[in-house]
Amino acid sequence: MAQDSAEAANQRRTTARRELIETQIHEHAARLFAQRGFAGTSLGDIAESVGITRQALYYYVKSKDEILAKLVADLTSSVVTRTREIRADTTLGHAERLRRIAYLTVMDRARDRTRFQLLDRSASALPPELADAFLEGRRLALAELRGVIEDGITAGEFRPLDARVGALSVLGMCNWVAWWYEPGPDHPAEPIAEQMSDCAVAMLRSEPTGTDPLAALATARASLDQLERQLRIDNRRG
Amino acid sequence: MAQDSAEAANQRRTTARRELIETQIHEHAARLFAQRGFAGTSLGDIAESVGITRQALYYYVKSKDEILAKLVADLTSSVVTRTREIRADTTLGHAERLRRIAYLTVMDRARDRTRFQLLDRSASALPPELADAFLEGRRLALAELRGVIEDGITAGEFRPLDARVGALSVLGMCNWVAWWYEPGPDHPAEPIAEQMSDCAVAMLRSEPTGTDPLAALATARASLDQLERQLRIDNRRG
Repeated sequence: MAQDSAEAANQRRTTARRELIETQIHEHAARLFAQRGFAGTSLGDIAESVGITRQALYYYVKSKDEILAKLVADLTSSVVTRTREIRADTTLGHAERLRRIAYLTVMDRARDRTRFQLLDRSASALPPELADAFLEGRRLALAELRGVIEDGITAGEFRPLDARVGALSVLGMCNWVAWWYEPGPDHPAEPIAEQMSDCAVAMLRSEPTGTDPLAALATARASLDQLERQLRIDNRRG
Repeated sequence: MAQDSAEAANQRRTTARRELIETQIHEHAARLFAQRGFAGTSLGDIAESVGITRQALYYYVKSKDEILAKLVADLTSSVVTRTREIRADTTLGHAERLRRIAYLTVMDRARDRTRFQLLDRSASALPPELADAFLEGRRLALAELRGVIEDGITAGEFRPLDARVGALSVLGMCNWVAWWYEPGPDHPAEPIAEQMSDCAVAMLRSEPTGTDPLAALATARASLDQLERQLRIDNRRG
């Protein structure tokens, strides 16, 4: 029993060490690709940057293409899956779903600035199937966020606006973080992610009608008058 | 008199033609710089792209550096001046100042997508004094927008948040347009700029108190405005 436990602990340590080094390899590779371009970076450069031998590097990765494929997959499929899960979580209100997606997007960009900059601006320089995978991942993530906003508009929680432009507004605000955020002990990312996720909700949510029933009534009446006029005009045109 | 008028008209036509060709030269140069890099683009490439001879090109511009300097100046000093003027316009409320800045920024990005992409992502590849001018221009424009938000927080029109992060949120949303907007007769930029400038105001403004009849009136009016905008969007799509 004791020996089994010791073996299991060893196994866990080996796995943890492997994951740590793989993460380092991916981070260093992303930085080098961003600085020198994909073609201008060799596996030897990456090994030297990580501080391991080229032989040791081959134990973890087989090729530059494999590293790049992993960088692309990390930035796309995991985001799509996460956004889909949050969208489907009916225990959350629509505003809360949007808030979580914005919060996690800002935290991702603050953590993986270099990697995001590299892939987002160099998609055209990627090998074709990777570029396709990356762009398809972005398209799916946008479609899911747009769905979250459309759901909220249907439920009356968000204003009736163009949901695609709304999704691109939220993504633009969050993605931009990768270009201006400077990490450091005096610059935690969490307060930025909190403010931006508040802003994402505030920019889309419906006007509160307030506690005054007469105000709510006036809003409803004015909106109905407007709608009636509009529909009459449309009917004449039709 | 008549001859003077004819000469003046001729002069105006010549100036208009010169401005048109200069604009074309700058647009084609920005696209080529973005595609092939600054070093990889010759004045001959630019002339060929515009459809004029290299000799004709020299009549308008002296060097690649001159073109690049113009591209940088257009994107920086004019924006700083404009933002400063809007900030100083005391006939406007704080929300209206923010709305105008966001609207004009989106319209700029939609119009000059290639140019903005080139300079924003290649600042490090510019000749040093141009890179400095570009980064200083961005810094000043950010400081002015931050000032607009700080003024609005002091006046109680905006929520008490981190004004720098607020300014970067608005700029991120607006700047991102350069990477996703596809111009065309079916895709006018104005509705996008309207929605985004609404969102910029909504993400920062203070919560309405609700029991104040004036706040209720403002809410009713905002609902009408929103309905009107939505019907306009529907009409354009229809």
